[in-house]
Amino acid sequence: MDFHARLQELGYELPGVAKPLASYVPAVRVGNQVWTSGQLPLVEGTLPLTGKVGAEITTEQAQEQARIAALNALAAIDAEVGLDDISRVLKIVGFVASDPGYADQPAVINGASDFIGEVFGDAGTHARSAVGVAALPKNAPVEIELIVEIAA
Amino acid sequence: MDFHARLQELGYELPGVAKPLASYVPAVRVGNQVWTSGQLPLVEGTLPLTGKVGAEITTEQAQEQARIAALNALAAIDAEVGLDDISRVLKIVGFVASDPGYADQPAVINGASDFIGEVFGDAGTHARSAVGVAALPKNAPVEIELIVEIAA
Amino acid sequence: MDFHARLQELGYELPGVAKPLASYVPAVRVGNQVWTSGQLPLVEGTLPLTGKVGAEITTEQAQEQARIAALNALAAIDAEVGLDDISRVLKIVGFVASDPGYADQPAVINGASDFIGEVFGDAGTHARSAVGVAALPKNAPVEIELIVEIAA
Repeated sequence: MDFHARLQELGYELPGVAKPLASYVPAVRVGNQVWTSGQLPLVEGTLPLTGKVGAEITTEQAQEQARIAALNALAAIDAEVGLDDISRVLKIVGFVASDPGYADQPAVINGASDFIGEVFGDAGTHARSAVGVAALPKNAPVEIELIVEIAA
Repeated sequence: MDFHARLQELGYELPGVAKPLASYVPAVRVGNQVWTSGQLPLVEGTLPLTGKVGAEITTEQAQEQARIAALNALAAIDAEVGLDDISRVLKIVGFVASDPGYADQPAVINGASDFIGEVFGDAGTHARSAVGVAALPKNAPVEIELIVEIAA
Repeated sequence: MDFHARLQELGYELPGVAKPLASYVPAVRVGNQVWTSGQLPLVEGTLPLTGKVGAEITTEQAQEQARIAALNALAAIDAEVGLDDISRVLKIVGFVASDPGYADQPAVINGASDFIGEVFGDAGTHARSAVGVAALPKNAPVEIELIVEIAA
């Protein structure tokens, strides 16, 4: 499928691949899957927003950050195998930097899930976990892992 | 194996599949595996207990919630491929909503692991991670992910 | 490859396999992969350091603990399939028990990633997630999961 065209049609531009913050790579190919590293919502190397959801950051703001992190995950996959080779999105793990009283992590990670659904349609139906963590790298509000299946 | 019968024998009833809180599915089949989404200990759509383990919730209470979440994970797998097709339980990831001073996450997730062992016997021996997180969806005390292998 | 020799050359000794804290196993073989359970930085059954990174524990101290946890993960894999059968390290998930204001989880998990790179060279290039959690078992500062590929 031409998922590059689909992204463009939806008004999204695939960013350059975020440099890993450490001695690992943004994505690895494992048989007919690609596993991404945890992706932060970096935009040109910096985080648009920092802080905890439920404190400094609202659910709506965090949804947008989850979408950006998912877009970065797609860029990492694209650099590894080419986005158009994706046959199915298998799983999203979403970590939300949460105030201890915040309980709407699913709404935040919907920012990623709905974006994936928009781009991939039926091929975007995935398993998912959403959890609220104490803190994330660089004080990011959200971190996203993506696992996709690629065509043989 | 007739794991439905085994559940019944142990006095458990497989619940209806919990509707996902968002745009994803409760479980996906990936080759000869099934990966569940993170499962909350919902009973007929509501959480029997909410709060942090080590604060409002005791270890013993949380163990029972972990067992319920694991039962919900089995229901999600059953709806996808049929419980009796499971040949092996491969992995449990257990997230425990924890008071920062609480350190007995393994005891909590034993509620899930021991239940899986009870139902599946040797086929239930799994890898496992147990971590304490700041907050979970709907203020749940525990969230469980399950990965199983299914017979060819 | 003779990764046992490489470890020895680097001055590391593979420890005995840490007994699981619960009813699960330290590692499972899944096709041509081995998945470890979450590993704590136990040394002869006890944790050298406990507490939260960014509070009682420094980044440098936590890096060393991450390395120890990764060494324990290798021991678990070695007990399951033999270390020298590893063809590639695929993924590290690193959980860092974090003070809510701590944001340098990647530096901590570099303790594991750099160690894996040192031992496995190019075969050690992996995907990775690093998150800051509220609390870990036994008040450990870090917990590491490892997934490796083994030669056919």
